[in-house]
Amino acid sequence: MQPTERIRRALEQAVSQGEAQGCPPQLAGAIRHAVFPGGARIRPQLCIAVATACGDDEPELTDAASASIELLHCASLVHDDLPCFDDAAVRRGHSSVHRAFGERIAVLAGDALIVLAFQTLALGAARRPARLSRLIGTIGRGVGMPFGIVAGQAWECEPQVDLSDYQRAKTGALFAAATMAGAEAAGAEPEPWRAFGEWLGEAYQVADDIRDVVADPDVIGKPTGRDVALGRPSVAREFGLREAINRFEGLVASTAASIPDCRGAARLRTLVRFESERLVPKAWSERLERIAA
Amino acid sequence: MQPTERIRRALEQAVSQGEAQGCPPQLAGAIRHAVFPGGARIRPQLCIAVATACGDDEPELTDAASASIELLHCASLVHDDLPCFDDAAVRRGHSSVHRAFGERIAVLAGDALIVLAFQTLALGAARRPARLSRLIGTIGRGVGMPFGIVAGQAWECEPQVDLSDYQRAKTGALFAAATMAGAEAAGAEPEPWRAFGEWLGEAYQVADDIRDVVADPDVIGKPTGRDVALGRPSVAREFGLREAINRFEGLVASTAASIPDCRGAARLRTLVRFESERLVPKAWSERLERIAA
Repeated sequence: MQPTERIRRALEQAVSQGEAQGCPPQLAGAIRHAVFPGGARIRPQLCIAVATACGDDEPELTDAASASIELLHCASLVHDDLPCFDDAAVRRGHSSVHRAFGERIAVLAGDALIVLAFQTLALGAARRPARLSRLIGTIGRGVGMPFGIVAGQAWECEPQVDLSDYQRAKTGALFAAATMAGAEAAGAEPEPWRAFGEWLGEAYQVADDIRDVVADPDVIGKPTGRDVALGRPSVAREFGLREAINRFEGLVASTAASIPDCRGAARLRTLVRFESERLVPKAWSERLERIAA
Repeated sequence: MQPTERIRRALEQAVSQGEAQGCPPQLAGAIRHAVFPGGARIRPQLCIAVATACGDDEPELTDAASASIELLHCASLVHDDLPCFDDAAVRRGHSSVHRAFGERIAVLAGDALIVLAFQTLALGAARRPARLSRLIGTIGRGVGMPFGIVAGQAWECEPQVDLSDYQRAKTGALFAAATMAGAEAAGAEPEPWRAFGEWLGEAYQVADDIRDVVADPDVIGKPTGRDVALGRPSVAREFGLREAINRFEGLVASTAASIPDCRGAARLRTLVRFESERLVPKAWSERLERIAA
């Protein structure tokens, strides 16, 4: 089965578990709205790709780990879009959860998604209980305090922020959790996979800064120009577009170089190349060269 | 060690784990503010009381389960107090988290508390991995969709609500999770302990309705009269104070009667009697009789 299909099925199973009769209908609707149709699903894809490279001896647990990470990512998007943060009307080409269901349901939907993520993980570990505690530790660290994505978001509320600390927490932490959880789900050592996730996460964050400045909102499915409007830390804003693209390309190279030597290494490098072109097409860099010439 | 001291230590350990250097200071401060000094800690006390009645063969796991349940309860209070819900300025006699730290940090603190709850549980299960998956299932059901406290809160956003469904989810679900998790942490069957938690949770919810009408805000540590002001479902509002007190007394009797036959039964009945008097003093009922006479 293709990874994208594995992810779709695992998410469908998780979401439908919460929709039993007797669930408040708006909450159930908001959860589905937050999870489907979804974006690039890059974090769960990473998790499955690393698990596959490590032998994937327990696919049910791999699928649960990848779904859990995507549910946590969706939760963070729902809360980041709230009026008190970005006040975003659009997400992934559709209305944001708080615009479609109201602010109260959006707060609760984010909470329910976090809980659902850990329930999904626990269910998937039924046959491998010994792997569960460590997986929760790894995924929890990617999300919570002191260095996970919630902490990353909280840095936006501080008067003084170190840009790379901020980006590592805001994006890198959950990417590293995805690669390390992929290894752990397959019974392998997670530590060799940390750098791969961290580099890729940093590349994603810089790509996001670049796209906020360059890309058409119709292409990326959410409004652009938000970093400037919200005064958010941004490489593209702080150092200019040329420097941001250089930095992105350097991070992509570091990502590819950090892949541990294993059977699936070539496939992982292809995934990195493909994602890199999708996020920041080479054509943008060439256009900048022509303008500068 | 007294249960209250076990709870305090387990919560302190959990909270300090998130406060490592490098954590955004306001987020760390908000988490501590949300958890300490705390209220009656009745849910974790229930969890420990049931575990003790079941032999408590793994106290570290019992403490982790009880802390996890209290962290989830604190998360729900932080989010319930947000401007889009109750807009409460005061909680447990202190300023609410969103008043002290702002709305954004309050949203993130609730999220971080949920994550911390599951991390705490996983850490505490290190020596008993086989008990972890089921404990996450039990506690997750008490919190998430379709019947947990998040769902209970979501019923407040629906145009039509069944009062007993609402109260079962809003309060009973986490009480039942507390009693059942206590049994599971001690390696016992959880099902016989469900009714005890559910009855007690329903009694608490009715007591809360009564206290919202009767009690002095200085005594209960938060503003009263909120159910009426917010148009929330309430037994005291729907059926009057006399009927609400009658119902409360009936629920307390059912709670005591539902305690399974075991070594700790007498101690549990004392706990129920003590809590009942703390919540709705007999003096209130007698005063009502005098007024009616």
